Amino acid sequence: MGEFDLIRRFFQRPAAAGVDVGVGDDCAVLVPTPGARWLVSSDMLVEGRHFLSTVAPERLGHKALAVNLSDLAACGATPRGFTLALALPRVDEAWLAGFARGLWALADVSACPLIGGDTTQGPLNLCITVFGEAPAGQALLRSGARAGDEIWVSGRLGDARLALEVFRGTVALDGAGFETVRAAMECPMPRLALGQALRGVATAAIDVSDGLLGDLGHILAASGVGARLDLDALPRSAVLAAQPADLQRTCLLAGGDDYELVFTAPRGVRLPDVGVALTRIGVIEAEPGLRVVDVRGDAVEHGLKSFDHFAS
Amino acid sequence: MGEFDLIRRFFQRPAAAGVDVGVGDDCAVLVPTPGARWLVSSDMLVEGRHFLSTVAPERLGHKALAVNLSDLAACGATPRGFTLALALPRVDEAWLAGFARGLWALADVSACPLIGGDTTQGPLNLCITVFGEAPAGQALLRSGARAGDEIWVSGRLGDARLALEVFRGTVALDGAGFETVRAAMECPMPRLALGQALRGVATAAIDVSDGLLGDLGHILAASGVGARLDLDALPRSAVLAAQPADLQRTCLLAGGDDYELVFTAPRGVRLPDVGVALTRIGVIEAEPGLRVVDVRGDAVEHGLKSFDHFAS
Repeated sequence: MGEFDLIRRFFQRPAAAGVDVGVGDDCAVLVPTPGARWLVSSDMLVEGRHFLSTVAPERLGHKALAVNLSDLAACGATPRGFTLALALPRVDEAWLAGFARGLWALADVSACPLIGGDTTQGPLNLCITVFGEAPAGQALLRSGARAGDEIWVSGRLGDARLALEVFRGTVALDGAGFETVRAAMECPMPRLALGQALRGVATAAIDVSDGLLGDLGHILAASGVGARLDLDALPRSAVLAAQPADLQRTCLLAGGDDYELVFTAPRGVRLPDVGVALTRIGVIEAEPGLRVVDVRGDAVEHGLKSFDHFAS
Repeated sequence: MGEFDLIRRFFQRPAAAGVDVGVGDDCAVLVPTPGARWLVSSDMLVEGRHFLSTVAPERLGHKALAVNLSDLAACGATPRGFTLALALPRVDEAWLAGFARGLWALADVSACPLIGGDTTQGPLNLCITVFGEAPAGQALLRSGARAGDEIWVSGRLGDARLALEVFRGTVALDGAGFETVRAAMECPMPRLALGQALRGVATAAIDVSDGLLGDLGHILAASGVGARLDLDALPRSAVLAAQPADLQRTCLLAGGDDYELVFTAPRGVRLPDVGVALTRIGVIEAEPGLRVVDVRGDAVEHGLKSFDHFAS
């Protein structure tokens, strides 16, 4: 199967609403919503860094798009479409069929059509760029947090990192526990509805991809503020809660790959209910720095850093 | 140097005009031009397939953006911005400085700012997604060619392929000749001004990235027409014109990496003068198929195909 057959078979569908030209010309052509801003984000996934060779292709297709949609969610954007650039060592039709199935399933449920891209031969690499819209001035940014705002997080943290530790052989879990945390790692659901509902409510937002400490740190740096973070308040699964305290802390604070939203909002503001659990985990303070405390308010020493792709 | 330092040092600048938020948040935020369509294209470059390890990083930075801008040019779009996702085996500051220099130089001259992206560790891979605009209904597509239209090409064809043959060791050139064709391979200039000037003039357009036969074939397939192509009319450099006829034919018809525009236009229409040579190379016919003829109108047997990343 050649390059163009591959595209036609797995990645081409009739153009969706709002798309004048989809896959198959030099460019895709989209119809912007009058008055809206255009939001763009791009993420590249490399085998061994962002996913393991053991992942089912369907889950990989889901995850490759999910981590990108999560950036739109963090900005409160409504998805409009995405491009996929794919380097493949070889054409494996069964793998491609599974990958495309997972990709399209999430694209359909997110109303975010595939509109173009590229395929080439090379070491496995997936690069997705997503496009979305938000009304002018309403995109959620990292820079709006103010002293006194409360810090919230959606869903639960740390399961993806716990699954990674199982794959690394440092932790053993029973079958059901492993499936729970593995699904968190391989099938994150981007918080699109929450992000959109937080427009005009949240003062700052980010998605947790590199670990809570680092990602919250980006909000603090961009907003010029500090924070107190309540370790014991961090929402976690029963599987993670059954692990030793040290491991829990690592998974919760520096796990990464969570794809939950962390956001700040003025105290007492009414938060939207979109069927996703929201937990208050701390407060923004004027004093710079990120102070992690336990339920008694005592400082927690953790020595953890955010994930860095080039740190030794 | 960590991931975020790397981004700040080489890839972050103050947001450009029309960009509300650039590099440094979850998404970039752009201000669309009222009434315009939004055009998107994405290309991934892999070492050994799209560039050689011998290429100077500055030229690679130029070329990675150039091949993407060429897709905007083929659609007659005005550039608005691009994202860069970069997988690097390691952080090599001298390489990054050169790469960024070449990238920014073309970005600046094309008024196409870098607005976001991703960096990760992995086998060298460059994925750029470009965004542009065109008035509604004026994007140049592959599908508008009509019988009787003339076929035109910008600049010259075949030099990039000739350079590749030198690198492969199948052809020897003197130093000046090699530099000429090497520059064509490593430093293509996207035909943005030409593409924009062809709005409302050309009936169909594409850029020559996989070879003239294949790319013109895409126009014919999308438009439901055929063509007669005059081999002897194809514009070529003096360096290529001095090569054996067989090699010339291969480089001209199936070379690829040319990044010139091939377009169709009604006979007698006034073509724009943007300082780029335009050559009439054939005519669109109702009969399907692509017939290559010589200056006497006799059929040329060539046995050539377009480049396919997954063909054996």
